[in-house]
Amino acid sequence: VVSFGVTARRIITLTTDFGLRDAYVAVMKGVILGIAPDIRIVDVSHDIRAQDTTGAAYVLDSAYRYFPPDSIHVAVVDPGVGTARRPVAIHSGHGTFVGPDNGIFSACLTGQQVMDPASGKLDGATAVMLNEERFQLTPVSQTFHGRDIFAPAAAHLACGLPLEELGPRVERLQTGEARPPVVKRGAVYGTIVHVDHFGNAISNLSVDLVPATPVIEVAGRTLKGLATSYQDARVIAIIGSTGLLEIAARNASAAETLGLRPGDPVVVRSER
Amino acid sequence: VVSFGVTARRIITLTTDFGLRDAYVAVMKGVILGIAPDIRIVDVSHDIRAQDTTGAAYVLDSAYRYFPPDSIHVAVVDPGVGTARRPVAIHSGHGTFVGPDNGIFSACLTGQQVMDPASGKLDGATAVMLNEERFQLTPVSQTFHGRDIFAPAAAHLACGLPLEELGPRVERLQTGEARPPVVKRGAVYGTIVHVDHFGNAISNLSVDLVPATPVIEVAGRTLKGLATSYQDARVIAIIGSTGLLEIAARNASAAETLGLRPGDPVVVRSER
Amino acid sequence: VVSFGVTARRIITLTTDFGLRDAYVAVMKGVILGIAPDIRIVDVSHDIRAQDTTGAAYVLDSAYRYFPPDSIHVAVVDPGVGTARRPVAIHSGHGTFVGPDNGIFSACLTGQQVMDPASGKLDGATAVMLNEERFQLTPVSQTFHGRDIFAPAAAHLACGLPLEELGPRVERLQTGEARPPVVKRGAVYGTIVHVDHFGNAISNLSVDLVPATPVIEVAGRTLKGLATSYQDARVIAIIGSTGLLEIAARNASAAETLGLRPGDPVVVRSER
Repeated sequence: VVSFGVTARRIITLTTDFGLRDAYVAVMKGVILGIAPDIRIVDVSHDIRAQDTTGAAYVLDSAYRYFPPDSIHVAVVDPGVGTARRPVAIHSGHGTFVGPDNGIFSACLTGQQVMDPASGKLDGATAVMLNEERFQLTPVSQTFHGRDIFAPAAAHLACGLPLEELGPRVERLQTGEARPPVVKRGAVYGTIVHVDHFGNAISNLSVDLVPATPVIEVAGRTLKGLATSYQDARVIAIIGSTGLLEIAARNASAAETLGLRPGDPVVVRSER
Repeated sequence: VVSFGVTARRIITLTTDFGLRDAYVAVMKGVILGIAPDIRIVDVSHDIRAQDTTGAAYVLDSAYRYFPPDSIHVAVVDPGVGTARRPVAIHSGHGTFVGPDNGIFSACLTGQQVMDPASGKLDGATAVMLNEERFQLTPVSQTFHGRDIFAPAAAHLACGLPLEELGPRVERLQTGEARPPVVKRGAVYGTIVHVDHFGNAISNLSVDLVPATPVIEVAGRTLKGLATSYQDARVIAIIGSTGLLEIAARNASAAETLGLRPGDPVVVRSER
Repeated sequence: VVSFGVTARRIITLTTDFGLRDAYVAVMKGVILGIAPDIRIVDVSHDIRAQDTTGAAYVLDSAYRYFPPDSIHVAVVDPGVGTARRPVAIHSGHGTFVGPDNGIFSACLTGQQVMDPASGKLDGATAVMLNEERFQLTPVSQTFHGRDIFAPAAAHLACGLPLEELGPRVERLQTGEARPPVVKRGAVYGTIVHVDHFGNAISNLSVDLVPATPVIEVAGRTLKGLATSYQDARVIAIIGSTGLLEIAARNASAAETLGLRPGDPVVVRSER
């Protein structure tokens, strides 16, 4: 009974670009529940843009920290499925992460300071390559490792399987495409990393990089100061709920109003 | 063990305009499960049109009555987040409701006859303002009270916290924009309040306001009588599953076919 | 305590065309949980195209086999709601299926070889018509049998109610519109049955009907051989994750690239 209670509380989260029109997500859940019947599954998002590993990395990074540290986060945005890219599982003090080794976990892991953003070398986290057939659905398909490799690995981990049983250690992971902010001659150079459901354009500039009275250049405009509510003005800069500078518009999509897209530059200086 | 069983059965529902592309909904679930690990969470909708508090009020009103009365309904469509609007929790005999005080609960509460539709005065329901920092994620952000105020309040209530612990009593709530139907000179004047996924246009006229052989004027057309199935004719009036008069089209969107939108008038008379 | 554990593990899946904008899906969950508080509910899809029973049949068929055989699969794509079509529940060795008798289960049941694809006669599965008012929400509405008939039937079955209690036996079901593949003069003639979220066009040709070195005619093109990854070429034929031949495009939608739609023909020959 005690062990049931404990198991029931453990959480597996899912982040994919599978959409909700097909059975793909449900199939992963069926596989997980067949192995770990009492686990709790929480959807993070299945509407990541197809094959957008950078967007997935941002969304997962904004979610995982609100879950208990024994949670297991499965992320499957996987343009290289069926090629040589490695399936991996990573354990850090803040969660366990399961998915393809294509940079999808780099925002999480560099944010936790357990992965070097340049080399991908791990320090303070343990990773393995998922190559133990015992813990896979066989034969493994060429097109759906979410079902055949990642869902069973997560479910076995949730049941208490030690990470090391899943395959050999990996010391270094792919870092992905995300570029960190640059500080140069009193200015901070960042990038839009995500446009959310409301059209808010979220940058990679965390609150500690933004001066108290900033002057922000974005999409050919200059915005002065930080707003304290989405109602403050027609177009605003605001520190969003994940602690990142975002550009928003009152009752409208800032991304549409300004023509902003992921990858666009944002420059912040201090007002003199 | 007994208390585990009891807790496991309690339900928190979520209604938001957050969409499913980002991590916002999952973050609320992570916060809830961190506080109340055995609670059950049911999504009502996260596809309310951005900032459409009237649509949210309708959707929540059509859902809550099918859940056990000890369920807790969190609704976050919140254009005023970060401004002076109050965060509230309301307890009635049919459920507990948690969200911003902006009219989002008025359809539920007036339907239960515990709130005066004109003044917003409560009678038969208890409400409090959520200002107890102990039950919030601090510091409370300016942009995401779903995570910082409403999710923790709901989770603590689900664990058995008395409503009164969350903050001071509130006697009166905002009534929102919904206009009740008007009966004048033998005609009933109503409004379209929601267009559903199938394009059915749902009015605020309940079955008891509709005569047995009605003549309905809507979108410049006259419809006679009530259909008994969506297959009856090309455009029909029918009493929908929530007991409200709705306008539907056979295998098509009535809203598109007729150009109907929320706010459009519907007039019903009795055939002579 | 033991019975709680057992109940908690049983799964009800939901497949509908209700979308996620309205409360319809949540209402079904509220009804289910009111009857079977400890059941687990898994969404398969609510984004089936409105009234597309063939697409729903494919999606359900690709999902059910990954769930434990005591799972109950509710499918409600129901253009005939309120007409004479029968509500049914079917029990086979691989699951229990609840929904309208309109062909929505024919792919599942013919695949399990418990239903004759031509006559709809059952052999090895038990079906009943759901007409016992005791197990319905009364009065049953004309428009929402998902709430009033199917959800309560599934919940009562999940609680252990024998199928026979729900209504009289049915020997034969509707077969739906799906046409099986035809083999003629060394060629296999199939059909596109589904276009998935990625734009992959999935046929009804299972791997055993496809020769080792096939020549595939589809949308006016000729494709030679089978790919082993979605990255192999611009347009490929590949055996997808459900064992069916599918047409895919590298980092793009094959359906858009080739103008493919459900119902389009696919012809496969062996290379000489």
